Amino acid sequence: MSAPRQITRLASRAISRRASPLGNGIIRNQRSSILSPCQSSSSSSNQYQVKGLSVRYGSHLPERSPNFVKPTEKHLNDLKKIVSSSLSSLDGTATQEELKSFNDDWMNKYHGNSKIVLKPKTTKEVSEIMKYCYQNDLAVVPQGGNTGLVGGSNPVHDEIILNLSNMNKIRSFDQVSGCLVADGGVVLEAADHYLAEKGFIFPLDLGAKGSCHIGGNVATNAGGLRLLRYGSLHGTVLGLEVVLPDGTIWNGLSKLRKDNTGFDIKQLFIGSEGTIGIITAVSIMCPRRPSAMNVAVFSLESYEAVQKVFAEAKGHLGEILSAFEFFDKQSYALVKHHQEENGEAERKVFETEGDFYCLIETGGSNAEHDEAKLTGLLEHLMENEMVLDGVLAQDSTQFQALWKLRELVPESAGKAGSVYKYDVSVPVAKMYEPVEQLRVKLREGGVLEGDGKMEGPIKAVTGYGHIGDGNIHINIVATKYTDEIEKIIEPYVYEVVSKYDGSISAEHGLGVMKAPYIGYSKNQTSIELMKKVKQMFDPKGLLNPYKYIV
Amino acid sequence: MSAPRQITRLASRAISRRASPLGNGIIRNQRSSILSPCQSSSSSSNQYQVKGLSVRYGSHLPERSPNFVKPTEKHLNDLKKIVSSSLSSLDGTATQEELKSFNDDWMNKYHGNSKIVLKPKTTKEVSEIMKYCYQNDLAVVPQGGNTGLVGGSNPVHDEIILNLSNMNKIRSFDQVSGCLVADGGVVLEAADHYLAEKGFIFPLDLGAKGSCHIGGNVATNAGGLRLLRYGSLHGTVLGLEVVLPDGTIWNGLSKLRKDNTGFDIKQLFIGSEGTIGIITAVSIMCPRRPSAMNVAVFSLESYEAVQKVFAEAKGHLGEILSAFEFFDKQSYALVKHHQEENGEAERKVFETEGDFYCLIETGGSNAEHDEAKLTGLLEHLMENEMVLDGVLAQDSTQFQALWKLRELVPESAGKAGSVYKYDVSVPVAKMYEPVEQLRVKLREGGVLEGDGKMEGPIKAVTGYGHIGDGNIHINIVATKYTDEIEKIIEPYVYEVVSKYDGSISAEHGLGVMKAPYIGYSKNQTSIELMKKVKQMFDPKGLLNPYKYIV
Repeated sequence: MSAPRQITRLASRAISRRASPLGNGIIRNQRSSILSPCQSSSSSSNQYQVKGLSVRYGSHLPERSPNFVKPTEKHLNDLKKIVSSSLSSLDGTATQEELKSFNDDWMNKYHGNSKIVLKPKTTKEVSEIMKYCYQNDLAVVPQGGNTGLVGGSNPVHDEIILNLSNMNKIRSFDQVSGCLVADGGVVLEAADHYLAEKGFIFPLDLGAKGSCHIGGNVATNAGGLRLLRYGSLHGTVLGLEVVLPDGTIWNGLSKLRKDNTGFDIKQLFIGSEGTIGIITAVSIMCPRRPSAMNVAVFSLESYEAVQKVFAEAKGHLGEILSAFEFFDKQSYALVKHHQEENGEAERKVFETEGDFYCLIETGGSNAEHDEAKLTGLLEHLMENEMVLDGVLAQDSTQFQALWKLRELVPESAGKAGSVYKYDVSVPVAKMYEPVEQLRVKLREGGVLEGDGKMEGPIKAVTGYGHIGDGNIHINIVATKYTDEIEKIIEPYVYEVVSKYDGSISAEHGLGVMKAPYIGYSKNQTSIELMKKVKQMFDPKGLLNPYKYIV
Repeated sequence: MSAPRQITRLASRAISRRASPLGNGIIRNQRSSILSPCQSSSSSSNQYQVKGLSVRYGSHLPERSPNFVKPTEKHLNDLKKIVSSSLSSLDGTATQEELKSFNDDWMNKYHGNSKIVLKPKTTKEVSEIMKYCYQNDLAVVPQGGNTGLVGGSNPVHDEIILNLSNMNKIRSFDQVSGCLVADGGVVLEAADHYLAEKGFIFPLDLGAKGSCHIGGNVATNAGGLRLLRYGSLHGTVLGLEVVLPDGTIWNGLSKLRKDNTGFDIKQLFIGSEGTIGIITAVSIMCPRRPSAMNVAVFSLESYEAVQKVFAEAKGHLGEILSAFEFFDKQSYALVKHHQEENGEAERKVFETEGDFYCLIETGGSNAEHDEAKLTGLLEHLMENEMVLDGVLAQDSTQFQALWKLRELVPESAGKAGSVYKYDVSVPVAKMYEPVEQLRVKLREGGVLEGDGKMEGPIKAVTGYGHIGDGNIHINIVATKYTDEIEKIIEPYVYEVVSKYDGSISAEHGLGVMKAPYIGYSKNQTSIELMKKVKQMFDPKGLLNPYKYIV
């Protein structure tokens, strides 16, 4: 292991000549300091209500289907014989007001009207519930931590809520293979804490980790901050236990990395948003926990430079690159303004500011090696003038401070006005173009006067996100929400994304909110196949109705 | 970069006291020397005809379905108007003898009787062919490089062969994201050579790389040697273009890492073995090519020790561990015997031999760092007496020589007698138990006298494979193939695998060979779901009939 002296020398060689006010050097952060910025970075984009979309949701609210039977006291009494725990306004175990935390989403944007919440403790109970509901044509909405952003886990009308929070046991962990098997209702953070004690890490991290369930993560194919490093759940999930709409328990809880015996059925449930089955258990391959982490932030003159630095980072850092985030100067201006207003103004971070910024995080098994690789990258970038300036965290405070430059963007946008937010995927090379085209469109529409000038109907159009994943968040900050602005933005933004073969929902899913817009990301053949899949699993359409593929 | 002096010092500190005859030291291999052992290691298990299974195949040969129309000269003439290239004994463009290389598999184990081979050049041609065949009830077998091991790419009767070899263009490569888009008929090695020039690597490597197609790789969910490092194709494939049984072209050729807009339909085609669609193009995420590789082999006293070393290797090597292979003393005895007979006997490799051996390969972006990590592991293993002895390759010759200890196992078994071969997945902790239980069973049956004594009806029962993937190859070497021995082994071996929730086909697929045995790996609910999937895509059952899910 490296001596502190050596670390300092390496670091100073790289960037001390820049005299960055955040100081220079490299640290080996403790776990606590590593995870916090990641959490907030991920969650930060989700903390504001999307006013425009909220309004749209109202107009898109699907009518209640007459195919579903209205749940009665008789149904409740029958179900109470099956399930160990329930809440209902029908039997006085809860008022309708008390059911709000199940009926509403956490943003208070989606509002269901269910009178029955069932909280089964076993897979058998889930199975019996679904069997009964299937036989009685009762619609059901599966609910995990209820942390979603598209209304996927709330009833639209009076669907029975099947909440998984009582199914929260770790079933097994294999220290040799790293295979964890756990109930679907285990909270992500609890699973990760369990793994941390054993030196492993859950291959997924996101802002809602303290509340979201791993079953819900799989059902929504959650992306988060570790995707660049550990890949998607389609690769890491080894098996699932699922209760099908008719109550059949499908035991696909494999612990095998290799198994080529037929269609990989579990893949259909990953990202199915609770529409074809209820995930009661997950088997997932967990990697070793990195013992060292570093973070650096650079200013750059163009988006082309961001792409070049991304390529260099992949080359120099190789297997230890764990995050590559970027934000534009409009985003940075919002953050500086927000910090100034809060009296938290940092000293000048960059000697030379740029049109773009990128944040690079490394996570590896050997601190000294990681430092050397990062230093090599820094030297290369500086010597070849690929960046304008760069700063490197020296301790955990700086680690947090640098992450904040990225993670405060959405919060700062929210403080500056009413924000139209879009979460899209676009091929990396074209990733910034939707932002630029939106600016042109808004200028043509006469609502955008100048970027970062903080005046006119629209104060700023910003872009930031995960370069490594091709996932950009677009925030349009307006003085207030108006129909005029919304009409300029939509469906234009979806058209632009569609033109670049992008995705209108990179990581948040479809739910109720984006179900009507799937055609911008998927062609008719895809949609028809999806409808057939839904029909195959749930011919009565009882599970999580009115959402996803409608 | 490290100086040679420093490398030698690190290496000698670790293992010079063992005076290993292969020498000590660490090398940075060039690309050419890196790939060769991987190729042969993977291919080696596939080079021998499975006599027992070959016999069984005969008895299991499914009867021709009367639902399919027999292809006629009229059909051929119609099809020739669609497709730019064809071969047929019906129009004299080929004799039936000349069609053998399409009708037979490369092991000469499966023999079809097709009279028509179509070689389309475009997706549109594939689509037109399928539309015609669907309308005329003509059965079709899609064929890539025809390198499979389970008869999946050969006709069983007179199915029309749709060979993809004329669809062999790289469509695009994005240097920033690493996303490659290529025709399904591109040879794996060609794709990898293309990527190598750009500093990238195809995230899959296997023995047949010089012949197999990437479309076929995806269709069979090929595993290979890079799975431990780069994960399965379910994680790396970003999109597919597929022609469905009725000729519909499904364009799911996404280049996005994140896209949560509906069911991930492409996943169904990965590992579908050509039964629900023909993969005409693949979009796949390719990582940077490692610039440094090392290999070490250890002798150990027990399978428990192998597991412990695997855990230590993951801890010390972390992100650079690229392969962890193992073989037992029976395997090693066969290799030594084979090398002696060939006059290639090496000097004694290990000072202390063991009951087990493991091979560790690293691949990273910084040779000096990788060496240091590997040295750290070696010291830890030696100091804690977790291994009996260890050797480390010093140059590319030794790199090859060490890989040969593992890769020669199947070839050596084949030279020693008639080999019953099984390729199964079992959770790592239980991975060696099928071998031990087979030995007991064979002893009870009176056909196994002693391990490694090279006498009696059965000469050896060996186990070797990929610990990292939980994938073990079991080779049973007999003096000759007999019904008596087969009856002792089967279905016992599948029962044992089933008992440990293992897979009867880790990486080779089902094809014709294992289709009847799927029940040992998959429960009835799974099989019923699979049948529904097949029915959904191919209600006429025209695509690759008699195989997979029957």
